[in-house]
Amino acid sequence: MANSKFEYVKDFETDDRLPRCNWIVVRIDGCHFHQFSADHAFEKPNDENALNLMNACAVSMLEQFPDIVFAYGVSDEYSFVLKEASQFYQRRASKILSLTVSYFTAVYVMKWKEFFPHKDLKRPPFFDGRVVCYPRAKIIRDYLSWRQVDCHINNQYNTCFWMLVKSGKTEREAQEMLKGTLSKDKNELLFQQFGVNYDKVPAMFRKGSCVYRDKVEEIVKFDESRNPVRRIRKKVVLGHFDIIGPNFWHEHPEILEED
Amino acid sequence: MANSKFEYVKDFETDDRLPRCNWIVVRIDGCHFHQFSADHAFEKPNDENALNLMNACAVSMLEQFPDIVFAYGVSDEYSFVLKEASQFYQRRASKILSLTVSYFTAVYVMKWKEFFPHKDLKRPPFFDGRVVCYPRAKIIRDYLSWRQVDCHINNQYNTCFWMLVKSGKTEREAQEMLKGTLSKDKNELLFQQFGVNYDKVPAMFRKGSCVYRDKVEEIVKFDESRNPVRRIRKKVVLGHFDIIGPNFWHEHPEILEED
Amino acid sequence: MANSKFEYVKDFETDDRLPRCNWIVVRIDGCHFHQFSADHAFEKPNDENALNLMNACAVSMLEQFPDIVFAYGVSDEYSFVLKEASQFYQRRASKILSLTVSYFTAVYVMKWKEFFPHKDLKRPPFFDGRVVCYPRAKIIRDYLSWRQVDCHINNQYNTCFWMLVKSGKTEREAQEMLKGTLSKDKNELLFQQFGVNYDKVPAMFRKGSCVYRDKVEEIVKFDESRNPVRRIRKKVVLGHFDIIGPNFWHEHPEILEED
Amino acid sequence: MANSKFEYVKDFETDDRLPRCNWIVVRIDGCHFHQFSADHAFEKPNDENALNLMNACAVSMLEQFPDIVFAYGVSDEYSFVLKEASQFYQRRASKILSLTVSYFTAVYVMKWKEFFPHKDLKRPPFFDGRVVCYPRAKIIRDYLSWRQVDCHINNQYNTCFWMLVKSGKTEREAQEMLKGTLSKDKNELLFQQFGVNYDKVPAMFRKGSCVYRDKVEEIVKFDESRNPVRRIRKKVVLGHFDIIGPNFWHEHPEILEED
Repeated sequence: MANSKFEYVKDFETDDRLPRCNWIVVRIDGCHFHQFSADHAFEKPNDENALNLMNACAVSMLEQFPDIVFAYGVSDEYSFVLKEASQFYQRRASKILSLTVSYFTAVYVMKWKEFFPHKDLKRPPFFDGRVVCYPRAKIIRDYLSWRQVDCHINNQYNTCFWMLVKSGKTEREAQEMLKGTLSKDKNELLFQQFGVNYDKVPAMFRKGSCVYRDKVEEIVKFDESRNPVRRIRKKVVLGHFDIIGPNFWHEHPEILEED
Repeated sequence: MANSKFEYVKDFETDDRLPRCNWIVVRIDGCHFHQFSADHAFEKPNDENALNLMNACAVSMLEQFPDIVFAYGVSDEYSFVLKEASQFYQRRASKILSLTVSYFTAVYVMKWKEFFPHKDLKRPPFFDGRVVCYPRAKIIRDYLSWRQVDCHINNQYNTCFWMLVKSGKTEREAQEMLKGTLSKDKNELLFQQFGVNYDKVPAMFRKGSCVYRDKVEEIVKFDESRNPVRRIRKKVVLGHFDIIGPNFWHEHPEILEED
Repeated sequence: MANSKFEYVKDFETDDRLPRCNWIVVRIDGCHFHQFSADHAFEKPNDENALNLMNACAVSMLEQFPDIVFAYGVSDEYSFVLKEASQFYQRRASKILSLTVSYFTAVYVMKWKEFFPHKDLKRPPFFDGRVVCYPRAKIIRDYLSWRQVDCHINNQYNTCFWMLVKSGKTEREAQEMLKGTLSKDKNELLFQQFGVNYDKVPAMFRKGSCVYRDKVEEIVKFDESRNPVRRIRKKVVLGHFDIIGPNFWHEHPEILEED
Repeated sequence: MANSKFEYVKDFETDDRLPRCNWIVVRIDGCHFHQFSADHAFEKPNDENALNLMNACAVSMLEQFPDIVFAYGVSDEYSFVLKEASQFYQRRASKILSLTVSYFTAVYVMKWKEFFPHKDLKRPPFFDGRVVCYPRAKIIRDYLSWRQVDCHINNQYNTCFWMLVKSGKTEREAQEMLKGTLSKDKNELLFQQFGVNYDKVPAMFRKGSCVYRDKVEEIVKFDESRNPVRRIRKKVVLGHFDIIGPNFWHEHPEILEED
């Protein structure tokens, strides 16, 4: 009432509901994480604790937001897939974007000490994000493949680069040596010069991380004869799989099931 | 290259740059803060520490993002005004929204212990946000007035409500007693029943909080005769003013200066 | 060059490309056609010439714009479906909307005399339009069903209404008599009072009109022995079918074929 | 009711209302008018009849749509400015775009014979359009200046080009001769080679056309002594003015008056 004179300013808000029957991807990306990881002396090319922290945040996300059916993470980036029929906040893009990014950030700061017990946070870690709609499950698979190919290319390059640097090359020299090399050249270099079989590099580094819900058998109680009673439960799980090929999706058809 | 087969998925991203020559407001709002403040036993109707934490986050925001020219906060909500000519991330709405909300959240969690040294965070605090464009400085003033009127109405109501509850009424009884009362009735009630002069309630509760940059004279060093050398500096400051009337804006014309 | 000082105004234009992998529907609707049809004494409830003119315009549309794969029209409304993979004007919504509406309008005025040789156009006929994206062929079918159900409901009602009015009822009386009647009541009324079997009403009135490309055998020339040489050609055709059930679509699977 | 099963398809329609407190420009542009003007043997570089027809359409537009406060046209293009506070179709972009383009097109075809009594329309003329928002009157003036500078540059070039071609040069030769020339070079060429003073070229060609409402004194009736009774009326008028400089706008301050 008293407020009505100014309330017209609400009319400037726009309706940003995302179209129905589209899968929604929120991709979160560390802001100035180059600087952030330097400030906190993250290991190169991969800091296992930092990745584990990212993954723990992603697990929290799926536990908090039931409409997220799958998440894929690599480096300081994570993609969250909301189910096609989601009615989360009436599919309003700003709501979905802001509160997922915010929740992720809060968990990241709160869990920091768990993963870096001996390091203090020197500055606020923060993330930007974007929301994209995809009209088919098939395209979501292509989206995730796009991210995993990126993971592969970057990780292979970075593995070589930091091996060279740690072996005494300058960063510029390392860069020069890698310019124009193909995937197999890099594998060769790793093996010949450093005795590293790239396929033995931890899957988390090579494949990134997948978070989803899976059926897990759990002991829920013990009966009067002290025998365990087991139940099948849906639980948020983490793994490092190939998600470009069909196998993972054949084994988990319910994740990207279309209406 | 190797990636090109999947890269078409980028085409689904939309261009969300906000129109030029518009002031940009990001309004951040606590998500499920009713529950959050109950979990952390915030004082009713206003928890001074919680408000001070919100304000500290807002100050950090202006220190981090130079394009924010003004912020106004009340309760678990904060509005940030970006200058009309801002080119921050080319004015892309998702970038602006996500990283400001994320930064605010990170600071909130990091500074929690400063303001609540004896309370642990029990769950991640998180915020949603929205971005709105306003084509005139005059409308930004109306926007801010809208928020401050809201602050006034809510705070006056809540002050009465909690006074009644603390005096022994049930929440339902308090609600019934306030139904249909006007502003002056509530002032009367506060004064008659509780001896409270509403105008003496702390300005932070009644007026909300303003954060902006102001010229501040600072001693920057001492000269050889040990006399202080003063400089005028722009500094982020906090205050609790009436921003509906013209006075504040007359005194700070540079804040909403149009191109 | 000389122009650069003002060229910044182009920055206010927005990118309105429609998302890929979505069928595009342009629905055109007569503006103030209630008045327009009164001014030109269109027959009630259906003016055959006016519908034939609309259909002729739709045929011209498919001949002019190869990306339109199907059109459905009823009364002064026509929906045009552009194929999912269309790259017509890079899928820019304004371009697609404006030029299709404009072309339709131009043809309408140019062909008027063909269908109304004895009536002059008294005022400019004009149409509004909208563009909507649909992510699945299945939803396009639902969209078209929605329009055809509307056609049925309106035509059955209007047939009854005008029969009553022509038989001497006032418009208000006719309206009252039809209030709350079901489909079968209306059929009964038509049969009992006017001896009209609704199923014998021309299909164009009951079903609306479909325009699409079909394989048609044509005589393209005569060989030396004067025997006709036939070729299968794709030709724009018009029909009045049920498009809610599966038959039409089973017979024409190529129309809504997904990528 | 019966329809509800399919009505969900309406949810795919988006809310496209344009932001308040913004001037709205609809710019209409001939589609394939290069071909269209060749087919109808338009004179080069300017066909007076074709321009007069465009202008007549623009006048009709202002007569039909009261929210259009100004129109500026050049060649086969016309810009229509809707007043800042317009609530025309609740400012829905598709409605505004489609029905203005459609109305313009209908009038173009209907008035063709008036301006080309000896030429038949050989194909449907059609136009595309776009809608752009501008938050200040000052920017609308810059927008209009942008179009008028364009008019000047194109017309001066085309005048030279066609003079050269008519004097016997090939189109390629003419193009070569004009490459890199400045404005004053072109004026010189016109004067030296063809005795043409560019400033004497008709203003409609050099300046384009402005359509707006102006106060006009009209005789509305004659009193009993047969003396004329005059009234000041607002009438749609057409002129060819400089709209880059301030004079026109000083003389017509009401056209772009801000709220």
